[in-house]
Amino acid sequence: MSSFSFSPGFGSDNHSGIHPRILESLGSLNHGHAHSYGGDEVSLLAEREFRRHFGEDIDVHYVFNGTAANVLCLRSLVDSYHAILCSDQAHLHLDECAAPEYFIGCKLILLPSHDGKISPVDVREAMKRLGDQHHAQPRALSLTQPTELGTVYSIDELHALMAVAREFDLRVHIDGARLPNAAVHLGVPLAALTTDLGIDALSFGGTKNGLLAGEAVILFGRSRRPDFKFLRKQAMQLPSKMRFVSGQFLTYLETGLWQEIARHSTQMARTLAQGLQDFLEIKICHPVQSNAVFVQIPKPWTHPLRDEAFFYVWDETHWIMRWMTSFDTTPEQLQRFLGKLQEVRRNHPV
Amino acid sequence: MSSFSFSPGFGSDNHSGIHPRILESLGSLNHGHAHSYGGDEVSLLAEREFRRHFGEDIDVHYVFNGTAANVLCLRSLVDSYHAILCSDQAHLHLDECAAPEYFIGCKLILLPSHDGKISPVDVREAMKRLGDQHHAQPRALSLTQPTELGTVYSIDELHALMAVAREFDLRVHIDGARLPNAAVHLGVPLAALTTDLGIDALSFGGTKNGLLAGEAVILFGRSRRPDFKFLRKQAMQLPSKMRFVSGQFLTYLETGLWQEIARHSTQMARTLAQGLQDFLEIKICHPVQSNAVFVQIPKPWTHPLRDEAFFYVWDETHWIMRWMTSFDTTPEQLQRFLGKLQEVRRNHPV
Amino acid sequence: MSSFSFSPGFGSDNHSGIHPRILESLGSLNHGHAHSYGGDEVSLLAEREFRRHFGEDIDVHYVFNGTAANVLCLRSLVDSYHAILCSDQAHLHLDECAAPEYFIGCKLILLPSHDGKISPVDVREAMKRLGDQHHAQPRALSLTQPTELGTVYSIDELHALMAVAREFDLRVHIDGARLPNAAVHLGVPLAALTTDLGIDALSFGGTKNGLLAGEAVILFGRSRRPDFKFLRKQAMQLPSKMRFVSGQFLTYLETGLWQEIARHSTQMARTLAQGLQDFLEIKICHPVQSNAVFVQIPKPWTHPLRDEAFFYVWDETHWIMRWMTSFDTTPEQLQRFLGKLQEVRRNHPV
Amino acid sequence: MSSFSFSPGFGSDNHSGIHPRILESLGSLNHGHAHSYGGDEVSLLAEREFRRHFGEDIDVHYVFNGTAANVLCLRSLVDSYHAILCSDQAHLHLDECAAPEYFIGCKLILLPSHDGKISPVDVREAMKRLGDQHHAQPRALSLTQPTELGTVYSIDELHALMAVAREFDLRVHIDGARLPNAAVHLGVPLAALTTDLGIDALSFGGTKNGLLAGEAVILFGRSRRPDFKFLRKQAMQLPSKMRFVSGQFLTYLETGLWQEIARHSTQMARTLAQGLQDFLEIKICHPVQSNAVFVQIPKPWTHPLRDEAFFYVWDETHWIMRWMTSFDTTPEQLQRFLGKLQEVRRNHPV
Repeated sequence: MSSFSFSPGFGSDNHSGIHPRILESLGSLNHGHAHSYGGDEVSLLAEREFRRHFGEDIDVHYVFNGTAANVLCLRSLVDSYHAILCSDQAHLHLDECAAPEYFIGCKLILLPSHDGKISPVDVREAMKRLGDQHHAQPRALSLTQPTELGTVYSIDELHALMAVAREFDLRVHIDGARLPNAAVHLGVPLAALTTDLGIDALSFGGTKNGLLAGEAVILFGRSRRPDFKFLRKQAMQLPSKMRFVSGQFLTYLETGLWQEIARHSTQMARTLAQGLQDFLEIKICHPVQSNAVFVQIPKPWTHPLRDEAFFYVWDETHWIMRWMTSFDTTPEQLQRFLGKLQEVRRNHPV
Repeated sequence: MSSFSFSPGFGSDNHSGIHPRILESLGSLNHGHAHSYGGDEVSLLAEREFRRHFGEDIDVHYVFNGTAANVLCLRSLVDSYHAILCSDQAHLHLDECAAPEYFIGCKLILLPSHDGKISPVDVREAMKRLGDQHHAQPRALSLTQPTELGTVYSIDELHALMAVAREFDLRVHIDGARLPNAAVHLGVPLAALTTDLGIDALSFGGTKNGLLAGEAVILFGRSRRPDFKFLRKQAMQLPSKMRFVSGQFLTYLETGLWQEIARHSTQMARTLAQGLQDFLEIKICHPVQSNAVFVQIPKPWTHPLRDEAFFYVWDETHWIMRWMTSFDTTPEQLQRFLGKLQEVRRNHPV
Repeated sequence: MSSFSFSPGFGSDNHSGIHPRILESLGSLNHGHAHSYGGDEVSLLAEREFRRHFGEDIDVHYVFNGTAANVLCLRSLVDSYHAILCSDQAHLHLDECAAPEYFIGCKLILLPSHDGKISPVDVREAMKRLGDQHHAQPRALSLTQPTELGTVYSIDELHALMAVAREFDLRVHIDGARLPNAAVHLGVPLAALTTDLGIDALSFGGTKNGLLAGEAVILFGRSRRPDFKFLRKQAMQLPSKMRFVSGQFLTYLETGLWQEIARHSTQMARTLAQGLQDFLEIKICHPVQSNAVFVQIPKPWTHPLRDEAFFYVWDETHWIMRWMTSFDTTPEQLQRFLGKLQEVRRNHPV
Repeated sequence: MSSFSFSPGFGSDNHSGIHPRILESLGSLNHGHAHSYGGDEVSLLAEREFRRHFGEDIDVHYVFNGTAANVLCLRSLVDSYHAILCSDQAHLHLDECAAPEYFIGCKLILLPSHDGKISPVDVREAMKRLGDQHHAQPRALSLTQPTELGTVYSIDELHALMAVAREFDLRVHIDGARLPNAAVHLGVPLAALTTDLGIDALSFGGTKNGLLAGEAVILFGRSRRPDFKFLRKQAMQLPSKMRFVSGQFLTYLETGLWQEIARHSTQMARTLAQGLQDFLEIKICHPVQSNAVFVQIPKPWTHPLRDEAFFYVWDETHWIMRWMTSFDTTPEQLQRFLGKLQEVRRNHPV
């Protein structure tokens, strides 16, 4: 049945399959019976792993996908009359089909972004009409790390954002669908980007990092709530055979796979970006700091390149492509692609 | 890591793991890249399988769990000011933490049940104050087949319910978390319990039937809607690496596994029930027509039996247990359990 | 334009118009400008009146109608995964078109009623599966006083219900659309039915008691919340020219009109019921303790009686009528109606 | 009790009271009984008046306030996964505390505005990712006429916006809280700004135009829906003593009061603006085309002016005031205010 598969491209890190070690773990967990909905031993072991990385003062709840992780993190932080501040490039706003509005009933307030990042100045600017009953009240700040444009907030940038959040008592959520890539880029542990900053909630991704499916909602300190399990169940996000969700994270964290994959996909992106230096016709749109390379290319190059490796046109107006690497991207694949670029340049001089 | 596992019991069919053939299929699908969110070849093949069983006039949409399948089926059939008629034993009402109310905004109207089934008379009785703007308007009828009590609606019972539904223009949804068990019990194809009756929506279960995770929402005829994909995405139920969800169903349907598993688990339940005939102290509460046996037992027997094999106390007031069989229940396991019963009877005479 | 009006009947207390003293107050308030949305002096005076009746430890918020008062009281007491216990006769369930489900996202659990009242035993019976994430968690108890069937909970009955509520930490809401009638029937002040019992929230009606429109949400003690104003605004229930809503209540409470109207309408209902004693063909269905008389009458009597005075058929199955009195019901009107009854009996002997 | 009132200012047109003729009509309607919830003769007469102004192909539904009118218009036009396009100055976005998001579940997409107006170019620019299930789908365009900044869309501007809306099959809603002022400014009938353009839904304001309270939702042609009454009831917006809501509109429309009030308040705003010509220190920020004058004034002038007549600081950053006129604004009041301005200039030279 493998006939269906096609050669790895740069479409997205969720075009790749299941990392072999994760798939293997599913088999190793497939013995006898286990309690469903989280009462099993595997989930307890996985929780221990999460505490090893994020500290003791957390709760871990597994959900099915990234949209659910983001919405449930925020559902647990704000009420319906609140507003959530996020970047105008946020997945939360652009790619979740109004799920936050539907399930929380709240408003998103969009902040301008530069390379996908928002600034403390713009957060402060949005803190208007506080206490005015006619106006949705800003209550949470949602950051994406790495951003949707593949860039990474520095520790200093994060501290500055946390400071303004504290000043206005804003809860802070991080969409960490690819957080390990940020940790690898900055050379810091996961806690340095979350626990140590004093954030309230984290969407910790799995699917885009080699898992079959599964994301973790992590609530920190004051934002832990014993009734979260009811919010998750009512949001239709309670997995039944939980051991196979938590078990993937157990393997992912316990064996250092999280770091291995992030290192590899980030390195592959850097290598690709490096190879592009020779092409003056190609403009790299944003600093390459994770596993995505955004490039502006000559329009005629698009189709021939896509024949070599699939990718998405990110911005039709400015003809910007997004080239994403994954755990299974290989140097050979990059070489072939760069070779193809040479050929395309010859056939389609600008 | 298998240390965690414990011997198969009668807790639930989601306490069992992944059927070996399903797990195998995940491996066979784990090649190269595939489009995410449903644009892949595996999903197309799976859809073809569904059409083979349910006819051409359907749409198939995959979601993560049973609550989501039920809620999304109904979300696509009713508006917020409508009421959904269901049994007072319905999973929809008792076990989904008000997810239908939260996501659809509608009201559930509970009908009395006998052996978990509702009657056309009670449906008709509920058709009150039609057109009255103060009153939520009955618009859908949700049936569970097999019911939460392990019983199966006969074809005649279903025809009678469909007739009253048609009379009042009620849309009909079937919660088919274990539909294959009903088909096997009645000796009919899946279409005879769905398409041929003219129902509008079906929750077709996977997780409780040997899959890792995944359910299918099937919309029929007039109730197919091109915008369902938006409802699913907004409901946070769009799987990313879709091939691994649709692929499980492909194997499940294509290889006849659906029938094989249903036959086995139903047979195991019947065998267990048969073995209970010798025990006058035990009352079988409902006809055993699928993979569940509900029994009233002497209270002192509970703990020793549970040491042998885990199960849930279903009704604390009347001390009724639910014993569920699964794809991995073995005759040996049943013999051991019945033997344990003999022993328990000796040690705890009533 | 008064041509439209028809003679006062027994349809409902919202078929009557505006009490003359209330209408007069609107004129007396119609001077110059006032701050909108509640910042005006009239609203402050009205609030003082409410404190005079219900004590200092309350918040008062005005809304437009009874459905909104009930929904917002409960919205402020429960979360979406909670269940609200109420009578199977509750306006909240039968006559609000699933507004509670839509706006709170929660579930209503219906308790059996006798003469419209629920019993502590049935409340206790409903406290099941506490802490079980699959099951909506009972969190509030909503009582209607007087009930939808015109009966009144005694102080003892209320104490018994409060006791079980406290035992299970249930918040208590009272739908008091006609609370003054209950106070008059029991001969107690309004606080005895609310503040002194330790309830959490009260819907205090105006529209059915002679006001043009307007209801008050009163939150007590621990259930007061400074952010309620946001819940009200988001629920589209913030009146703009607030002085004309609060002003009606000011007149209603300050001048003793609340008691005067309740005394009158209750007395009129009693007089009517008394007059019915002579009619063996008529069965009074529930104790007459407020301004409603529920009667079972011979079917042929219906139309001729309705020609004399409009009323609703409450229960088509048992042919039960609801005859409601109002602030403008007169003894003469009752005499005419009783006379008509005599005539109808002569023309339609049973 | 009139002591509370203070001299008419420029705070808002909902700071003024009830127009004498409207108050009078309430009295004239206060006879006997009438059916509640809309079954009364007054409401039928009022509906006839609406048809006289807006044509036969409409439905009219009364609600309590402007937020409800806007939300219910849009609730009837879009589904939860849709997006509504509106101006970044829209009341819908800035002043309704996320009520649209809460009750519809949808997303608002903000378009840049100039003098409060949006342009067809920006509407077209927002029509992105159509058919993409990850992205909320633009489905409705909401315009405010006159705008929140007191400006009026010309007939040509409206035709251009309708053309782009038709091109993308966008439903069109008009927030007409002060629509008569626009009609008066343009010298056209109400239908020219609504029916003749082919819009789908109109929020027709009452409260800001001399009514005690009440707004009308008008649905046009293809957008009429028989089930709207359920949407309204579930949204807690069904008035009980309907005759007193519809009756206000009957008087407002039948006697030409709508035009009289709009003419007056618009004229008063123009007169005020004219008087400001002498003040070089004052900048009029937007064309004065309805009953609002937005001015930038020297900061020190604020308090002394406010002592003369109350008004709001609209924009603290640029120190812009909003001066609104109303049905009860008098030339004398304007003279006094302009006189005060002279004095303030003398005492606070810039």
